[in-house]
Amino acid sequence: MQNLKIGIVGLGRLGKRHAENLVHRVSGASVTAACSIVEDELHFARNTLNIRDTYQDYDAMLAQADIEAVFLVTSTSLHAEQIIKALEAGKHVFCEKPLALNVEDCQKVVDVAARYPQQIATIGFVRRFDPSYAEARRLIDAGAIGQPILVRSQTVDLDDFAEFQIPFTATSGGFVHDMWVHDLDLARWYLGSEMTRAFAIGGCYKHKGFEQYNDADNASALCQYANGGNAYFFASRTAQHGHDTRTEIVGTEGILKIGHTPSATRVQICDRAGARTECVQDFFGRFEDAFRIEAQAFVDCAHTGTAPICDLKDAMAATSDAVILTQAYKTGEVVG
Amino acid sequence: MQNLKIGIVGLGRLGKRHAENLVHRVSGASVTAACSIVEDELHFARNTLNIRDTYQDYDAMLAQADIEAVFLVTSTSLHAEQIIKALEAGKHVFCEKPLALNVEDCQKVVDVAARYPQQIATIGFVRRFDPSYAEARRLIDAGAIGQPILVRSQTVDLDDFAEFQIPFTATSGGFVHDMWVHDLDLARWYLGSEMTRAFAIGGCYKHKGFEQYNDADNASALCQYANGGNAYFFASRTAQHGHDTRTEIVGTEGILKIGHTPSATRVQICDRAGARTECVQDFFGRFEDAFRIEAQAFVDCAHTGTAPICDLKDAMAATSDAVILTQAYKTGEVVG
Amino acid sequence: MQNLKIGIVGLGRLGKRHAENLVHRVSGASVTAACSIVEDELHFARNTLNIRDTYQDYDAMLAQADIEAVFLVTSTSLHAEQIIKALEAGKHVFCEKPLALNVEDCQKVVDVAARYPQQIATIGFVRRFDPSYAEARRLIDAGAIGQPILVRSQTVDLDDFAEFQIPFTATSGGFVHDMWVHDLDLARWYLGSEMTRAFAIGGCYKHKGFEQYNDADNASALCQYANGGNAYFFASRTAQHGHDTRTEIVGTEGILKIGHTPSATRVQICDRAGARTECVQDFFGRFEDAFRIEAQAFVDCAHTGTAPICDLKDAMAATSDAVILTQAYKTGEVVG
Amino acid sequence: MQNLKIGIVGLGRLGKRHAENLVHRVSGASVTAACSIVEDELHFARNTLNIRDTYQDYDAMLAQADIEAVFLVTSTSLHAEQIIKALEAGKHVFCEKPLALNVEDCQKVVDVAARYPQQIATIGFVRRFDPSYAEARRLIDAGAIGQPILVRSQTVDLDDFAEFQIPFTATSGGFVHDMWVHDLDLARWYLGSEMTRAFAIGGCYKHKGFEQYNDADNASALCQYANGGNAYFFASRTAQHGHDTRTEIVGTEGILKIGHTPSATRVQICDRAGARTECVQDFFGRFEDAFRIEAQAFVDCAHTGTAPICDLKDAMAATSDAVILTQAYKTGEVVG
Repeated sequence: MQNLKIGIVGLGRLGKRHAENLVHRVSGASVTAACSIVEDELHFARNTLNIRDTYQDYDAMLAQADIEAVFLVTSTSLHAEQIIKALEAGKHVFCEKPLALNVEDCQKVVDVAARYPQQIATIGFVRRFDPSYAEARRLIDAGAIGQPILVRSQTVDLDDFAEFQIPFTATSGGFVHDMWVHDLDLARWYLGSEMTRAFAIGGCYKHKGFEQYNDADNASALCQYANGGNAYFFASRTAQHGHDTRTEIVGTEGILKIGHTPSATRVQICDRAGARTECVQDFFGRFEDAFRIEAQAFVDCAHTGTAPICDLKDAMAATSDAVILTQAYKTGEVVG
Repeated sequence: MQNLKIGIVGLGRLGKRHAENLVHRVSGASVTAACSIVEDELHFARNTLNIRDTYQDYDAMLAQADIEAVFLVTSTSLHAEQIIKALEAGKHVFCEKPLALNVEDCQKVVDVAARYPQQIATIGFVRRFDPSYAEARRLIDAGAIGQPILVRSQTVDLDDFAEFQIPFTATSGGFVHDMWVHDLDLARWYLGSEMTRAFAIGGCYKHKGFEQYNDADNASALCQYANGGNAYFFASRTAQHGHDTRTEIVGTEGILKIGHTPSATRVQICDRAGARTECVQDFFGRFEDAFRIEAQAFVDCAHTGTAPICDLKDAMAATSDAVILTQAYKTGEVVG
Repeated sequence: MQNLKIGIVGLGRLGKRHAENLVHRVSGASVTAACSIVEDELHFARNTLNIRDTYQDYDAMLAQADIEAVFLVTSTSLHAEQIIKALEAGKHVFCEKPLALNVEDCQKVVDVAARYPQQIATIGFVRRFDPSYAEARRLIDAGAIGQPILVRSQTVDLDDFAEFQIPFTATSGGFVHDMWVHDLDLARWYLGSEMTRAFAIGGCYKHKGFEQYNDADNASALCQYANGGNAYFFASRTAQHGHDTRTEIVGTEGILKIGHTPSATRVQICDRAGARTECVQDFFGRFEDAFRIEAQAFVDCAHTGTAPICDLKDAMAATSDAVILTQAYKTGEVVG
Repeated sequence: MQNLKIGIVGLGRLGKRHAENLVHRVSGASVTAACSIVEDELHFARNTLNIRDTYQDYDAMLAQADIEAVFLVTSTSLHAEQIIKALEAGKHVFCEKPLALNVEDCQKVVDVAARYPQQIATIGFVRRFDPSYAEARRLIDAGAIGQPILVRSQTVDLDDFAEFQIPFTATSGGFVHDMWVHDLDLARWYLGSEMTRAFAIGGCYKHKGFEQYNDADNASALCQYANGGNAYFFASRTAQHGHDTRTEIVGTEGILKIGHTPSATRVQICDRAGARTECVQDFFGRFEDAFRIEAQAFVDCAHTGTAPICDLKDAMAATSDAVILTQAYKTGEVVG
């Protein structure tokens, strides 16, 4: 079997991690092209990752590069159009989450993808590939907790990054599209149902710069799902101890908790501060393995034609839920 | 200093525990009278606890018994009237939570109590006396987590007790007055503010008998407070592992988690089921110490004239919040 | 049933705790006499605990006081003689551990006690009464871990107390009689067998003042038992995080760990130091409940004539093992 | 920079894992040759890993293959000779632990290696590369716990594998060379000193088949080091919950615990068995990351000429300690 030839697009902070995984830690793949509008990123691609074929123009790459798949780690505002172009150029596509900030753009992508059923198109909801989240899925499927009836999930970032995020808020879609979109995807995945109503509250308790965007540094939401299930979400940008992504799934016959202490390692330190564990500092630290497993899964799907565990409709649903939750947060009223 | 002479009223399951604490494990107190309409309970008082003075009639006890304080462990529907009578008879009063199921009854008690400022009157929000909850309060007061902005708190009971609770739902006020009233009290205590709006969802996922009362076996609520703080509450009657009361307080500079694994002891068992701890099975198991500390605190307040840490206005606020939350749950709409 | 009338002897740091428990938190008992050579302690007994009958002379108390039992919280060097006198005076006896520092003194006590089979005589190996240690015993008896084959147990004290302990080393018997005697008792209890050989190593790594007594601030021992079982012990006086008493019992079919994080409460703090729990600071903090349960058990045995779970032969065996382990540590050779 | 061309030798259970890592998850390396006396293993190398150059004869591979390094995952009895041949053929060498079962063979290798200082030669003490063990090393170097004075370390395997190990005992060197050699290496690494005296006890409590080799299914050792440090080791083949490798480092100013609950994932399950985590089942599950990091480190050293963190003298010391500990266990006396 030949290696899948991949063109990676976007080599910023996260793009670099994806590229390194694809080059060094994923089997059955070769990164033969890289595309970025930032010359430094292409320099890194050529010199550190040994990717010979580099482009500043995405269309040029699609037209000229000898690739079978693209790996998009670009701005959310570009995702829909870039995915469509890749599909039309006959490529498999992996794209970082979220698919888009509105449902219309999502729908366009879904419609185009329907014309290319032989090509893999998937959005990187990385938590589904984390060994702990995957084990929870396996336990649920095995009946370990009966019927899942409530998902409680949070995305909590280290305070140090908050001020740095403020200028990106205008284009990122805010904390809902950036952070809760993960939790929204998990809730659908574990509950097996669609969100119908949402209520959200919170505020800017520490980083006032988010207020101009009507965004939050701490917020909570409560949501109902079509099958009677519930979800509670929490997002925070003010954690002192680390990146604290946690999820709990309450079933009729048991409860699963994922990541309730976000330890960086298996080391416990006993000193004047008590008995303590240092915590992961960012989502890279927490989901390093998951990013690798996710990339491998994409390559495997491309080789075998197997459907990805997260398809475009899942991604559209997550965006749709994020739109509703954004409205709920901004109005302070129940939406749906 | 003479022992405080106490008359205990109600010697059911919880009343017995209170009586045993007062007799055996609290200093500065003597239980000199007991009152119950159940002859077996008076038999227990006389023969096991050696309480000589027993009554079937509350008014008779107040009129005749040589007591300075009453300890009410009776049905919620009787609380208001019994407290008022005790105050008017010149007694200090401890009464089990909740104060009443409606604000009007609470107000009557508050009004009467205002006329007897020398007498202690307190409601048993036992969690405030638990060493872990008290330590969280101390840490917050010491500034350990900055400004508290979110309280997440839950009362979760073992599934085994659920069916047994169904017939009591009509008079107990349902899960909000019975379970969440504790979490409501804690949220006010830690946030230092009053609830203004509430939204609640859930359902009867397993024990359909609660449906006739529009009550829930699993439910979640999201609440706003006057100072901008938020609270999330969860109640469940379907836990398989034990009684799982947990609270988390998110502050601008740190987070406190209380009781995130409800271990019964400090024993970890490593066997075919993995690495595990057995869990406390009911609220007695979890709050055994707190009940004793609470009773001691009441006796100490009566001796010294110190104000109790939970006064009638706190109790009225908890009932008021429970009324709102009940309405929120029953309507499915935001209330407030 | 009449209260057991107790005379407490020794009201130092630990004696006060015992006295408070007996007065306030134990049922079926009255402390009617107190004995101490320190006037301040008798003042405390009279004024704080309301014990009217106080003595500076032990013999006088035995001769004159209206008591049925004595509770000895005195220097180890006095234990044997005081127990014998109490037995000969017809009293039940509770005595703090250890029974004595040599086997000969233990044997004398055992011999005298044999003549008074109607009187309870027990030594306070408090850990046996701790709910976690008791639960481990119950689990073992229920077959949860098959045959116990290895006990690993440690007594670890906060560094802050170390220098203060140095002057007492000459008379306390050193860390083996003071600290390991607990672990030795637990190993016998869980393994159900007698120690046959021992090897011990360690040193004065931080507190050089112990060297003059050939004592240690950190030490480890490895012991064999007659039934093939093994034990490993650790003692330390240099912990920064708190009092860290831990025990692990390895069985052929499972493992029990007791107290592997010595949390002071159920609070976890998430801050710049990571995710942490504050730890108990001394053995009072760790065994507060156990001291109360132990005192209650003694009173109950006295009332019912039931044999105590820790008898004088157990205490003699612990001393005998401590003598051997002391020799092992001081010689650096295998003893036995 | 060209990829390091590696020939892997031995593709059994562990060899396969190493080969997969080198092929798929390590950068800067190409596995261009494979050697095994088992045809199935070569078939796997050719067809699954796409390694074209396969050999049944080690000497032939060294003579003919276009390789710069060999990766030995062969029987311990072959290690010394194979390393020497590789060095003499001008190759870098990675060899699985232990270096040999006796010091003489180790010395021969060390002597030969001294003649080839430009070639990397390292033994796979994989735990040094585990992120948690490495973090402990970093914390110690940063002074977090003062002077390390005691290392407590264990290798504990799942009971299911025990009977399967019996036939290999004759040639593996028994549990000391197979299991404790890891703990011995860690103790030297953390204490920074050499073992001087050892005492060991234990037995065959469940799997009697080990008795014929005077080997153990559960054993403990206590060791002294030249700088005054101590170590306690435990090995067990009878764990029910999983592979339980744990290490604790006691320093004068703090304590580090590594891996005290061997959780397989970050999932906690709350069900009728309590609050529990499933555990890693074997050393692959525990050290999967470490094997990859270790292989990457070897490749990086070969490229840069940097000395490996575990050199042949470390490996010889571990074997020397294992020989002493084996003698200690078999004689039941202090050795050294």
